[in-house]
Amino acid sequence: MAVQRVAVLGAGSWGTTFAKVLADAGRDVTIWARRTEVAEEIRTRHTNSSYLPGVELPDRITATADPAVALAGAEAVVLAVPSQSLRENLTAWRDLLPSDAILVNLAKGVELGTLKRMSEVVSDVTGVRPGDVVVVSGPNLAKEIAQRQPAAAVLACADHDRAVAIQEASFNSYFRPYTNTDVVGCELGGACKNVIALSCGMAVGLGFGANTVATLITRGLAETARLGSALGADPLTFAGLAGVGDLVATCSSPLSRNRTFGERIGRGETMEAARAAQGGQVAEGVSSCRSIRELANRLGVDMPITDAMYRVCHEGVEPATVGAELLGRRQKPEWS
Amino acid sequence: MAVQRVAVLGAGSWGTTFAKVLADAGRDVTIWARRTEVAEEIRTRHTNSSYLPGVELPDRITATADPAVALAGAEAVVLAVPSQSLRENLTAWRDLLPSDAILVNLAKGVELGTLKRMSEVVSDVTGVRPGDVVVVSGPNLAKEIAQRQPAAAVLACADHDRAVAIQEASFNSYFRPYTNTDVVGCELGGACKNVIALSCGMAVGLGFGANTVATLITRGLAETARLGSALGADPLTFAGLAGVGDLVATCSSPLSRNRTFGERIGRGETMEAARAAQGGQVAEGVSSCRSIRELANRLGVDMPITDAMYRVCHEGVEPATVGAELLGRRQKPEWS
Repeated sequence: MAVQRVAVLGAGSWGTTFAKVLADAGRDVTIWARRTEVAEEIRTRHTNSSYLPGVELPDRITATADPAVALAGAEAVVLAVPSQSLRENLTAWRDLLPSDAILVNLAKGVELGTLKRMSEVVSDVTGVRPGDVVVVSGPNLAKEIAQRQPAAAVLACADHDRAVAIQEASFNSYFRPYTNTDVVGCELGGACKNVIALSCGMAVGLGFGANTVATLITRGLAETARLGSALGADPLTFAGLAGVGDLVATCSSPLSRNRTFGERIGRGETMEAARAAQGGQVAEGVSSCRSIRELANRLGVDMPITDAMYRVCHEGVEPATVGAELLGRRQKPEWS
Repeated sequence: MAVQRVAVLGAGSWGTTFAKVLADAGRDVTIWARRTEVAEEIRTRHTNSSYLPGVELPDRITATADPAVALAGAEAVVLAVPSQSLRENLTAWRDLLPSDAILVNLAKGVELGTLKRMSEVVSDVTGVRPGDVVVVSGPNLAKEIAQRQPAAAVLACADHDRAVAIQEASFNSYFRPYTNTDVVGCELGGACKNVIALSCGMAVGLGFGANTVATLITRGLAETARLGSALGADPLTFAGLAGVGDLVATCSSPLSRNRTFGERIGRGETMEAARAAQGGQVAEGVSSCRSIRELANRLGVDMPITDAMYRVCHEGVEPATVGAELLGRRQKPEWS
């Protein structure tokens, strides 16, 4: 299952960075960009100044705004669009996907309405078995990897051979992917961490320090693991790169959009102002807290931090109010 | 087992802060300070400018340089001296300890030579059963708690009643202690995190970003859990406040002495220069990496980060060399 030609569908910062990782591992990569001018800039100037300013892209990356051109002959297809638009985009691309291509997903989230994980959405639309979709996760801030800083990642797939094929296609001097067969755990770790990062940002915006952030990370990991257990994930996954690793990177870096968005809300900005300040982009955690909360409620899982973020983002409750509630829980043993 | 009078033996930043926590919870606290002038400053000016500059201490804290005065009538004794000097100090205080007092330990480390955990050292010297010693751990950067920032902590003791007595004596509006019966896990989490924080500091000093730090935290937690399992700890402890919580707070805060020391070494300073820059104090992780490595070797547990820190701190190997080795491990599944 050797992979040489790869299509990366989506030219955001992580899609473009992952294309660079593949090119630096010796693959031939075509990026599909929604906007013609982005495709042209990548193709002719080897930069993507809107999403990865200051980064030079390898010559062996080309780009197009035509999905048919990107997908022709691709042995692997990397889906790099936001989680809530994955279904719509994929539906448009469905008939263009080469039948043998390995599908790889980068988006992290739980779909609003259906409450499905991203690999389930891919399976729904394409008919590919969910166990054949490869999910990329781990502590992977795009801008650092784009600068060739060393990073470890997880490639989760129930089919070990497919994970190994993508591992070989992406392994290079600075990117070290590990395989993992727990797709459910890796996807939930990725989706929930955006919500926890929002809460960490809010705490910082409210003036709290590293103890509080570390406590939110710890309790956030615990509530993620509770949801994961209810859905059949391996608890060990949450102790690994796609759990604590991804969570810590996202919560501690000022490069994280979710953390930064939370900080703005914590400092008292409105949702609209925070969105405008981030170029009109809503942080993934804002939609994820809604879908994850619904999933948790359906399964009877207690997720107090996710619930608090939902109330701030969608019911207009003040960050300071939910903060006081989270801190005011009663004296008890740590695990009970 | 109500505790009203508490002696805190040691006037460093965490000892003084814990005294403040107890006083703010309504207890009468006497601090023992080694230096007369520190005791006098705490007693008369309600500050400890050497270790907690800018913090005002409650009036109900008094201080003395005479351990007999501090210990007279104490219902709980808080040991707040560095881990490698605990045995020597405690031997001097042994005959002054009130026989019914609950012993509480703040120091985190593994004793050089004996390779004992701190509760075992306390038991060795005092004859108190190790299961009766209360261990304080968690994401507890002293300076933040001293500013009354909200923090959660863990009080570990095999005897649940003693943990609850200290929980009641320390619970206040900003300090929320949880009880836990896994003393081994809590102590190892606390000792190992200083070593991992050294490594995170070194990575930052070498110019690496949040992905690398998050990866070191994740793999560091994994090696801590491996050592813990070999010693009978509960794996769940490492997913909690005394594991990931303490680790993340220490590794991500510029207030952490171990992280700061590592940064200096990573930037190319010598051990001597780094020590001098931190007021002559060696970071706990420097001695801990030696004793933890010995313990791991004795038990046949693989701890690559701890081993790397030992080689940098005690064998003069360059941080960049061990960094390249840690990053250069081969492609494989995440858990194998």
